[in-house]
Amino acid sequence: MNKGFLLVISGPSGSGKGTICKKLLERNRDLVLSVSATTRKPRKGEIDGVNYFFVDEDKFEEMIRNNEFLEHANVHGNKYGTPMKFVVDQIENGEIVILEIDVQGALQVKNIYNEAILIFLLPPSMEELKNRINKRGTETKEDIDIRLNNAYRELKLIDKYDYVVVNDKVDDAVENIEIIINAEKLKVKRMKKILDNIINN
Amino acid sequence: MNKGFLLVISGPSGSGKGTICKKLLERNRDLVLSVSATTRKPRKGEIDGVNYFFVDEDKFEEMIRNNEFLEHANVHGNKYGTPMKFVVDQIENGEIVILEIDVQGALQVKNIYNEAILIFLLPPSMEELKNRINKRGTETKEDIDIRLNNAYRELKLIDKYDYVVVNDKVDDAVENIEIIINAEKLKVKRMKKILDNIINN
Repeated sequence: MNKGFLLVISGPSGSGKGTICKKLLERNRDLVLSVSATTRKPRKGEIDGVNYFFVDEDKFEEMIRNNEFLEHANVHGNKYGTPMKFVVDQIENGEIVILEIDVQGALQVKNIYNEAILIFLLPPSMEELKNRINKRGTETKEDIDIRLNNAYRELKLIDKYDYVVVNDKVDDAVENIEIIINAEKLKVKRMKKILDNIINN
Repeated sequence: MNKGFLLVISGPSGSGKGTICKKLLERNRDLVLSVSATTRKPRKGEIDGVNYFFVDEDKFEEMIRNNEFLEHANVHGNKYGTPMKFVVDQIENGEIVILEIDVQGALQVKNIYNEAILIFLLPPSMEELKNRINKRGTETKEDIDIRLNNAYRELKLIDKYDYVVVNDKVDDAVENIEIIINAEKLKVKRMKKILDNIINN
């Protein structure tokens, strides 16, 4: 069995990472989505260990203290984190794990787990990013400005990433991510077992 | 214009690198084949600067002294080398340059030009490699043993490479190389110009 890897799909607000990841996972049933831990209460139908690992505040704080997270953050008063053990176990098992996360989270992950492969999702232009954020229609002028300023700031962090995928059309962006996955599978460092088989036969 | 890159396709005798490169270039007319310098006399129909750069012994020695080669070797009394300038000019021009070469040459290239992307072509098994070398029918038992021993030695150098492609079926191997090329095009370090365009629009 060759080792799998962690693919982090990230980008500014409005880059479309949610849509892209959903489609990517639909088209590639063998990919494994990273399961987050959260202090938020389960919603109807959510299953512990499938949608989230539901934990209480004490447990979450303990996990932070024990360095069990690849990243963690506070969102609207609830805590979310990516448990390292789940990801590492899957990778050892040969699986490709997908983590969809914002730019700050992606860089936390890369800091702790340098082997993670980071994809930056880009809108085709900043004009288009503005349109997308505007179209949501749920945000005030001030919120929109904050999101845009954040996007500009985040773009300057792109050098920390491995790959860039421009999200002009969803299908094209998903195909490009599939190409990256297939190329990464061919990296020498992941082929040790296959190599042993060939050399010994 | 984004920068191109140098893709070195390499592998032991019998790995099929000649067949693979021919097909790859047929299917991808935009790829540029690296042109070697040689002291061998031109054959009928060979054009200077297209098939080879034809140079005399003195010029070749001068090029070695001036560190103008990415690699060079002596083959049956003729000298062959890969001029760095041709490759670097093409890359600066955004082109993807293909170099087909044996394992020793590939490692020379990587030593001098670390950004080169190295693909190791593998036979599906050592048994199959033996069959392929045998089938040529032009070699003595001794020659075959030498080639097989070399192949085993060369396999141990695979850690110096970036990617491994198993050449079981030619079309599958070529497709895998195309996947590697397309993924490499998406590397952040090659996207500077595209990024500047997006940020400023």
